[in-house]
Amino acid sequence: MKKEFEVTPYEAKGEIDYGKLIREFGVSKLDDKTLNRIKKHTKELHLFLRRKVFFSHRDLNWLLDEYEKGNKFFLYTGRASSKGSKVHLGHLMPWIMCKWLQDKFNVDMLFQFPDEEKFLYKSNVSLEDTEKATYEDMKDVIALGFNPKKTKFLVDTKHAGIMYKEACKVAKKITFSTIKASFGFNESNNIGSIFYTSMQAVPAFLPSVLKGKNIPCLIPLGIDQDPHFRISRDVMPKLGYYKPAIMHNLFLPPLIGTGGKMSASSTASIWTTDSPKEVEMKIKKYAFSGGKDTLKEHRKKGGNPEKDVSFQYLKMFFEPNDKKLEKIHDNYKSGDLLTSELKEILIEKVNAFLKDHQRKRNLAKKQVDKFLFKE
Amino acid sequence: MKKEFEVTPYEAKGEIDYGKLIREFGVSKLDDKTLNRIKKHTKELHLFLRRKVFFSHRDLNWLLDEYEKGNKFFLYTGRASSKGSKVHLGHLMPWIMCKWLQDKFNVDMLFQFPDEEKFLYKSNVSLEDTEKATYEDMKDVIALGFNPKKTKFLVDTKHAGIMYKEACKVAKKITFSTIKASFGFNESNNIGSIFYTSMQAVPAFLPSVLKGKNIPCLIPLGIDQDPHFRISRDVMPKLGYYKPAIMHNLFLPPLIGTGGKMSASSTASIWTTDSPKEVEMKIKKYAFSGGKDTLKEHRKKGGNPEKDVSFQYLKMFFEPNDKKLEKIHDNYKSGDLLTSELKEILIEKVNAFLKDHQRKRNLAKKQVDKFLFKE
Repeated sequence: MKKEFEVTPYEAKGEIDYGKLIREFGVSKLDDKTLNRIKKHTKELHLFLRRKVFFSHRDLNWLLDEYEKGNKFFLYTGRASSKGSKVHLGHLMPWIMCKWLQDKFNVDMLFQFPDEEKFLYKSNVSLEDTEKATYEDMKDVIALGFNPKKTKFLVDTKHAGIMYKEACKVAKKITFSTIKASFGFNESNNIGSIFYTSMQAVPAFLPSVLKGKNIPCLIPLGIDQDPHFRISRDVMPKLGYYKPAIMHNLFLPPLIGTGGKMSASSTASIWTTDSPKEVEMKIKKYAFSGGKDTLKEHRKKGGNPEKDVSFQYLKMFFEPNDKKLEKIHDNYKSGDLLTSELKEILIEKVNAFLKDHQRKRNLAKKQVDKFLFKE
Repeated sequence: MKKEFEVTPYEAKGEIDYGKLIREFGVSKLDDKTLNRIKKHTKELHLFLRRKVFFSHRDLNWLLDEYEKGNKFFLYTGRASSKGSKVHLGHLMPWIMCKWLQDKFNVDMLFQFPDEEKFLYKSNVSLEDTEKATYEDMKDVIALGFNPKKTKFLVDTKHAGIMYKEACKVAKKITFSTIKASFGFNESNNIGSIFYTSMQAVPAFLPSVLKGKNIPCLIPLGIDQDPHFRISRDVMPKLGYYKPAIMHNLFLPPLIGTGGKMSASSTASIWTTDSPKEVEMKIKKYAFSGGKDTLKEHRKKGGNPEKDVSFQYLKMFFEPNDKKLEKIHDNYKSGDLLTSELKEILIEKVNAFLKDHQRKRNLAKKQVDKFLFKE
């Protein structure tokens, strides 16, 4: 029997039953038919799609209909930075998906940095904290290689001059009852946190406002953020805009096991700024093993790649070659490959990725201004 | 026995017992001692002060202490424009007070136009409606002669770029329970209206933010707007800013009688754009009379200036000369002056005021840009 699990914009805990989540959230499974429609345009499928790391969606077929009619979409995703928060591997997944989609479909992208969100939700976080962290996080986004001509950053407190007016239009259509039901709020919540979801809705239709015509929007995001858009998808047609389409990715599991998600507050997460030594230490120390208790037993009975976090990381993120992945899978399952060897493969892959990422992240400092939205 | 009355930011009805309001709102009566402190600096007192049209305050003595220590204050008031709304004589009172205070104390002023407020509170009002009305209302403010070098307009949707961040700091300190208690809201209120009071608080400390030092603020306003600042006065010290001082004016009574206030929705209000004919018609038709039923009885027993709206308008606004006012008072009370004659005096005064105001209002069109706050 599955353990109890919970997924909200504020928490993901327990062993997540994604099938149940699809039913509860009322989203659609990302099936082969839809993936093939994407492939028609992109020629190939990113591993996140081939391996169903992006596992569910809303209105993706409608979005493709519009695209095929010549009505190009734009991409929207975001990152709410907190006090001393850093970007971990799990955060990168929707962003990498965006980068790939931007290249393949040649589309614009809005990246929102709601620097007031964590300030409003956490008593010990100041706006100076989130501002500082936002700047750090922008470098991670830029490092992924987005096209600065087609990618613009919206920072809520800096861009409120264009966002607040639109947020008011959204806010007028949402009652406190709705917020209470969707986010589990009560009367002790502060009025900024109550208003906030209106600001998160704005980038999904801002290009339509600015260009004076309705432009479809696609939002790749972690499934936990879906409730924000469930509300704004109800509101947007009332304002005369399309509902945004959404693609949801699975959580990258925490190093310590497959329940919940890689957490921004856990020491067992891999940060984009980790050194090769840190990565090695964390994976060796924390990565949950699907292997058997003794070498003898492992060689005899083999490991369980579905339970092994290192294998899951390779599958979900770090081994794009399907054949190589299959081989690792089979060797681990047969017992030929030990957990320690599997971990070495992952350590090498993660460190190669981070070496390149950190180099680009360092160069990104000079590019931040180029990415900021300007009217 | 006094009739039941009610004063909220959204409604003023019944015969208002200002003494009771002072006790209920927990404000201080504006007494002669404080007025004399003002006079020490201003040499004379505006009729609004001499005649206690501004009748109560919060922390005015503290503000004068600071002023006397060399810590100059700035003025803040505002106007929430609505669909097709126009400015009436009652609206002008706090603004005229501001203009006089600006001149006498040589201080800066922020004038807020919260163009989202009525949009958020009224289902049939669009942001285009409030934008249009805001532009009209700005002309009324400018026509009063404010110094454009010392007076800046903040329009919420236009200036959210500097206001939203500060509003979030306020919002974090206010729960929905507080809003519910202060404004009589419930869970059906939209989340924009719930957030709104944070925006109204911002101008009271924005100069302190921008100049990086604490600057006292004085807010002249109608007593009905006090609840907004009761909340923000609690919050501001938590953010490290002074509580703003406030001066409250009596409502200019509606033409039809002394209950409630001149209303933005009543046809019996005098608008700043009314023609001389309209003013004449309205005063003749609607102005509540303190006279007796017959000419004979009036001559014999005299009229009641306290009940006569025309006399009240002269006293509260249009006859600055104390001796002339006293003479009108005595003549009306003795029965020498008829209500029709009293109305003629008022009509002439109002039309002289409006003629000058409308001329300046027309010239104001070209000045709007000069008054808009620029970073």
